[in-house]
Amino acid sequence: MYRVEERGRVNTSSYRLYLRNAQGQIVSPFHDIPLWASESQNVFNMVVEVPRWTNAKMEIATKEPLNPIKQDIKKGNMRFVANIFPHKGYIWNYGALPQTWEDPTHTDELTGCVGDNDPIDVCEIGTKVCTRGEVIQVKVLGTLALIDEGETDWKIIAIDIKDPEADKFNSIDDVRRLKPGYLEASVDWFRRYKVPDGKAENQFAFNSEFKDKDFAINVIKNTHASWKALVMRKSPTGEINCTNTMVSDSPFLCSETDATAVVEKLPEFGAGDSMPVDVDKWWYGKKN
Amino acid sequence: MYRVEERGRVNTSSYRLYLRNAQGQIVSPFHDIPLWASESQNVFNMVVEVPRWTNAKMEIATKEPLNPIKQDIKKGNMRFVANIFPHKGYIWNYGALPQTWEDPTHTDELTGCVGDNDPIDVCEIGTKVCTRGEVIQVKVLGTLALIDEGETDWKIIAIDIKDPEADKFNSIDDVRRLKPGYLEASVDWFRRYKVPDGKAENQFAFNSEFKDKDFAINVIKNTHASWKALVMRKSPTGEINCTNTMVSDSPFLCSETDATAVVEKLPEFGAGDSMPVDVDKWWYGKKN
Repeated sequence: MYRVEERGRVNTSSYRLYLRNAQGQIVSPFHDIPLWASESQNVFNMVVEVPRWTNAKMEIATKEPLNPIKQDIKKGNMRFVANIFPHKGYIWNYGALPQTWEDPTHTDELTGCVGDNDPIDVCEIGTKVCTRGEVIQVKVLGTLALIDEGETDWKIIAIDIKDPEADKFNSIDDVRRLKPGYLEASVDWFRRYKVPDGKAENQFAFNSEFKDKDFAINVIKNTHASWKALVMRKSPTGEINCTNTMVSDSPFLCSETDATAVVEKLPEFGAGDSMPVDVDKWWYGKKN
Repeated sequence: MYRVEERGRVNTSSYRLYLRNAQGQIVSPFHDIPLWASESQNVFNMVVEVPRWTNAKMEIATKEPLNPIKQDIKKGNMRFVANIFPHKGYIWNYGALPQTWEDPTHTDELTGCVGDNDPIDVCEIGTKVCTRGEVIQVKVLGTLALIDEGETDWKIIAIDIKDPEADKFNSIDDVRRLKPGYLEASVDWFRRYKVPDGKAENQFAFNSEFKDKDFAINVIKNTHASWKALVMRKSPTGEINCTNTMVSDSPFLCSETDATAVVEKLPEFGAGDSMPVDVDKWWYGKKN
């Protein structure tokens, strides 16, 4: 359905990954890919930013036109998430749901915190290691409410509908039963993953407990409504770039020619830098 | 000091990795690399067979001339070790100490079991992810006595002397203190790693406790003596191939010309097969 077009050099600030649809048109992974992948209320598109077991902190660049995936930069350095013992890199295929937005001006009734200004995050728990920029179809199983420096950052737990065992997974309890330890590991990972960068442990709402599928779908619907207001210019966009090629009634719709020009002015894909040696380090620290 | 020469195709039964010394001569990683790397009683050479976080079960081919590293085959398939949740592949740089042999005709006084007919295994716990066939210098910190189907299979715990933190590690207690959870994870890994292949959990001698450095060095000295008897044809070799190029008083010493011929008759290094999809699978099961 979608293919990737990489520009610049991997592991450098020039790297960008754009998406093109089946017709070859540039699409924004934030705005142009439909949130729902089917008639079913519970099959969503997911954009994979970070494949399982990798470290490079790749994310949809919400502030750039057409929102390519790029690597986050912290204090002037390309950002790689630490390996938090016993974990290796991210422990799921990690990404975002398109057409969602956690509104930073809106206080979430459920958590009492404002949104983090990003599309909603997803942890895909299936067997396969996905590739960067892959668009997969997932069903939602539950959610965890991470509180990161006072902002709500929902983590949706989902599984690829093409996973060989997808039929067995229909609730958060199925994850608990069939992948014992994975939910606890997920909380442990999110709690500690920024500690090596000198930050405090993250906190969670709801006593660190996962909420179920219906709750999660409701959260997604709310963030979809926030996104809709954004892309229709009914909410202030702030630094968010809403340029898109497919949302026909959006004031930010741009032409195919203009979209192509955004991508083609960038340097072609070329040999990247090597990974920093530090990426191999394992960080030890107390488990909570 | 040593460089690798690969032959055949990766992920196939034709793959072989040979070692050459600084003079370009083929050496056996089993027989020709000195066990001790320095005058110190506690700096050993280690041959890395499986880099940390990888799955291909690579091992010194004890039954082939000059003992290249090759991938183990189980039931006709290339063998990849399963990912035992929460672990990803091997959780250390895994390899062997040259010039050691766990004699299968000798009953270990300590464990009451015979040896497993292989060089002694090492788990290197340093920061760096090593490369396949790399020869590193390690100091020994302790050992765990795995019992695998009635055979003693000592696992030596060691650290690369070039590790940035090597100076801090001088005993098994230092590992327990500075890398909390790593020893417990190691026992958990060895206990369960063959379960996905349909085998029972492994057992351990000494109530699954690690023995200290002095104990480990003594075990190594015993296996070195067993190797010495083997390579001098004072023990029956069975299927073990003792062909070597550096053990000058061994009856199995061969010429440089003959050694080169062994390697050069094999197919050149070429494009390998892709990894089986199953390698990405995570196996869940109860922890003990």
